[in-house]
Amino acid sequence: MPQIKVGDYLFKRLHELGISSVFGVPGDYELALLDLIPSNALLWRGNPNELVASYAADGYARVTGAGAFVTTFGPGELSAACGMAGQYAEYVPVVHIVGYPGVSAVRSKAIMHHSLGDGRFGMYEAMAKEVTAATTVIDYAPTAAKEIDRVLGVMLREGRPVYIGLSADVAYEVIEGSGLENPLLKALPPNVAEVEKAVVEKILEVVEGAENAVIIVDGGAVRHGVLDETHELIKLTGLPTFPTAMGKGGLDEDFPQYGGVHQGAGTHPGVKDALEAADAVMCIGNYPSDFNTGEFTTVVKKSATIVDFQRCSVSIGDVEYAVTTKHLLSALNASLRSKKFSKPAKQVTWTPYPSLGTFSADEALRQDFLWPALGPFFRPGDIVIGETGTSAFGLCDAALPSGVMMFNQTVYGSIGYATGAIVGVRQAIVESGGKWKRPVLVTGEGSMHLTIQAIGDMLRFKLNPIIFVLNNGGYTVERLIHGKEAEYNDVAILDYSILVKAFGPAFESKYYGPIKTCGELTHLLNTPGFRHAGCVEMVELILPPLDAPKAVIKTGEAIDEFNKSKAAKGETAMQGA
Amino acid sequence: MPQIKVGDYLFKRLHELGISSVFGVPGDYELALLDLIPSNALLWRGNPNELVASYAADGYARVTGAGAFVTTFGPGELSAACGMAGQYAEYVPVVHIVGYPGVSAVRSKAIMHHSLGDGRFGMYEAMAKEVTAATTVIDYAPTAAKEIDRVLGVMLREGRPVYIGLSADVAYEVIEGSGLENPLLKALPPNVAEVEKAVVEKILEVVEGAENAVIIVDGGAVRHGVLDETHELIKLTGLPTFPTAMGKGGLDEDFPQYGGVHQGAGTHPGVKDALEAADAVMCIGNYPSDFNTGEFTTVVKKSATIVDFQRCSVSIGDVEYAVTTKHLLSALNASLRSKKFSKPAKQVTWTPYPSLGTFSADEALRQDFLWPALGPFFRPGDIVIGETGTSAFGLCDAALPSGVMMFNQTVYGSIGYATGAIVGVRQAIVESGGKWKRPVLVTGEGSMHLTIQAIGDMLRFKLNPIIFVLNNGGYTVERLIHGKEAEYNDVAILDYSILVKAFGPAFESKYYGPIKTCGELTHLLNTPGFRHAGCVEMVELILPPLDAPKAVIKTGEAIDEFNKSKAAKGETAMQGA
Repeated sequence: MPQIKVGDYLFKRLHELGISSVFGVPGDYELALLDLIPSNALLWRGNPNELVASYAADGYARVTGAGAFVTTFGPGELSAACGMAGQYAEYVPVVHIVGYPGVSAVRSKAIMHHSLGDGRFGMYEAMAKEVTAATTVIDYAPTAAKEIDRVLGVMLREGRPVYIGLSADVAYEVIEGSGLENPLLKALPPNVAEVEKAVVEKILEVVEGAENAVIIVDGGAVRHGVLDETHELIKLTGLPTFPTAMGKGGLDEDFPQYGGVHQGAGTHPGVKDALEAADAVMCIGNYPSDFNTGEFTTVVKKSATIVDFQRCSVSIGDVEYAVTTKHLLSALNASLRSKKFSKPAKQVTWTPYPSLGTFSADEALRQDFLWPALGPFFRPGDIVIGETGTSAFGLCDAALPSGVMMFNQTVYGSIGYATGAIVGVRQAIVESGGKWKRPVLVTGEGSMHLTIQAIGDMLRFKLNPIIFVLNNGGYTVERLIHGKEAEYNDVAILDYSILVKAFGPAFESKYYGPIKTCGELTHLLNTPGFRHAGCVEMVELILPPLDAPKAVIKTGEAIDEFNKSKAAKGETAMQGA
Repeated sequence: MPQIKVGDYLFKRLHELGISSVFGVPGDYELALLDLIPSNALLWRGNPNELVASYAADGYARVTGAGAFVTTFGPGELSAACGMAGQYAEYVPVVHIVGYPGVSAVRSKAIMHHSLGDGRFGMYEAMAKEVTAATTVIDYAPTAAKEIDRVLGVMLREGRPVYIGLSADVAYEVIEGSGLENPLLKALPPNVAEVEKAVVEKILEVVEGAENAVIIVDGGAVRHGVLDETHELIKLTGLPTFPTAMGKGGLDEDFPQYGGVHQGAGTHPGVKDALEAADAVMCIGNYPSDFNTGEFTTVVKKSATIVDFQRCSVSIGDVEYAVTTKHLLSALNASLRSKKFSKPAKQVTWTPYPSLGTFSADEALRQDFLWPALGPFFRPGDIVIGETGTSAFGLCDAALPSGVMMFNQTVYGSIGYATGAIVGVRQAIVESGGKWKRPVLVTGEGSMHLTIQAIGDMLRFKLNPIIFVLNNGGYTVERLIHGKEAEYNDVAILDYSILVKAFGPAFESKYYGPIKTCGELTHLLNTPGFRHAGCVEMVELILPPLDAPKAVIKTGEAIDEFNKSKAAKGETAMQGA
């Protein structure tokens, strides 16, 4: 039987899952393990700190399907705790590999560096358990392969992060490797046929019986990998379809019955009215978080039938069925096709995006201009990350051409995420064989400061993103929630014109800015060389400290009210779903 | 009875503990809470990210006695998990205040931003429990004061970090405030008189009976606040005294029987011989971690009597007594004084520090020159932080004048710590009323990259540290452990000559370098204007990638061996203690 090192077994499994690059920060407990990376056809993409590594692995996984990063016991792994929690909340399958001290050090309760000095070694795994779908610490070679497969299996089934600790010495122990001949199950198991059939029929009844059905495409449609099925359903039914903030950037916008982003009270009236008038709502991947629902202000008729498509369950009204959405939607579409069910697209009346004509060229740049202006700049093959805050909300007002992927961290909302994630996104683009082309980062400057060292990686790995940094002198979205003039919402004032150069003097980079007027932005976006410089391109946008998209101003007030209030809110049917 | 908001109660308690500045990153769950900071005579010192905030609070606490920082639920607090764990391992009393969602949101299991999206709210506190001495989440005003006092009480008794979650709405509820009239107990309770007397007598027997007793001053002597008592004991007994790496920078070096740092096999022969010949070892604040003992290579005679002084226990040989070292040492010194016990200083023969005369001015700068050269540069009132890696080890070879404080994170060893901690150290210096004067950061460049955004704070808060950055193209200490030529030990190459400017163009700063030869360093250290520029002063030192102090090269090899080995090591009497 083939013999193999435990570390090689793990890396071969990662490669099998489509992972070609591994992120992380080296530490002495895993240095020897890292020696095994190249021989397993993996690329090491070391990062300046572990938070950046966890975000990079997250961005990478959102594009390729799975990601991995390596840190060291204690300081390394804990610095990535926020990244793991974000992956959990947002259903991003990432393996966090942690180099552990050798078995004998653990058994003898030695006071090892990176421990808490009290002889305990299990506390960091206990912490990881709270924010991952599965954990293991491999300190015994004979069961290592089984443990690796068990934990990776959970990651694939649940679409969430897992944690694999690996003792420094056990990584090099040799085990039986024939388990590798059985590939891990990447697809969810098929539904029980009779249950699936019954649910399909019930949903057909809902669709056929409704006068005003609509489809909402939420974050789960993206994160549970059912976009193809969703797009076919939209086409077959012709139903008016709206994304949420978390669904935007996954849903193709190029079909007639598309309507703008639904975000509760802040929604465009045409879209809002359509949902409020609906007697049936097909909600694909519903994720009714505060930021995804305009602070729980979504309104749906009490009499409306809600069909709620989750990863491993589908509910019709109050009845939940144990079927996976992936297979259920396929069966539903097949049934619609076999019935020759085909309806013309039913359009809603809404004004797609604010007109740019009303702004004059020498007017100071404002967010109401910025977001609609950015839309036409995006090209098929772009992957856009919008940072939590005005960027993520604002990009809801940018029309996206077909073939643009966009995402943000709508539920978890960790600022700094986007600047780290773009590192992994670009790496995934390189490996996509031309399917994807250019990474675009849109972030506030306060958010970028959290993970600003990621710029060093963008340069040395030649990741060449376009970075739009919104420089408005602080945490604008927080000012709008509370503390408009408060000092605590100030941040350091950086010089963006030399910043990229400081992080990598050996590399080419371009700085454009400071862009202060609508005309300057228009001019830049239409400059032929821009976006084709073949290097990191940094655009500094100067915006007023209290300027934001209208939806943010509205939501900000609602959030402050909600935080202060003692009365529970958000008791709509959508929120309960 | 006086009525007071819960948030005000908390801040008044912090102020009572000598905390004048609060670090952190604002988030919407605690924005309203932050409004209460100025009226409680506290200063907000916001940071670019939460890891920097946790390190700043740590550095501040090491100087002033206690620290505090504020983050937001989820992403904020988890980004500081590494900082909390370091405070725990190293006995640094810091309060981590976390802004929680309002009570009604929690009760209704709403999908709030920063949660995991599953209706749970207790998981982050569960994580904090693993790395703090006490936690609470205050979601009920009537018991808030009691909970705050309970948790702060644990922090003071144990000298370790605690976690206080505070619901956004409860922070503004009004409670009975008369509890504030009873100050928190800052001192450890007195020992039981008879036990203390018996232990003092036993120790006197040991001291008087030994031919070759020595004193080891370890990290606990600093962290448990018994340096004054320790210095008196050294003076009264005249015993040869050696610090460990963790004790260096706390122990005054200006007395005749001082010997260099004891770090196991790598120790200077004169010091090593003295310990190996000792028949009694008084070990104050013994913390026998791998990095603090030359990877468990300390050797002590089996027949030697070890007196092990811990925070809340003292052991003589194998017998442990429930007495606090603080009070016990006072009683021991009193007893020595009353007996007129006074011995002349018993010197050991050792060569204090490598001679600088053997290096020529145009020789390439090497660490064997750097560390002894830095010693005479330090001035009374300096607080020096040496980053984990070659800096912390190397500074063991720098003679420190009386009145210099120096520390590092010997046990926990999180790289990036020093660059964040200096922010808090400097703030504490400003508040010290002239006792302390100048912060000096000594760090490798790979370590500095982890928390490099702290430079923005150094500028905007006018903290004016002197920064020595060792630029050697990667993680040198890791290269020496494993992977000398490995790509994973490379880091991004930055331009340090413009870096500080990029983080704060509005502020003055000085760059000196790149310093490549011994002569250039000597010249800089003797330049009158240097260290008096009144702004951030950044010195870039170019060092060969595999150059390190001799002790590091030796320890590096031992660490790799230890990580690979299956046999437990370090079974000396000192390690068991």
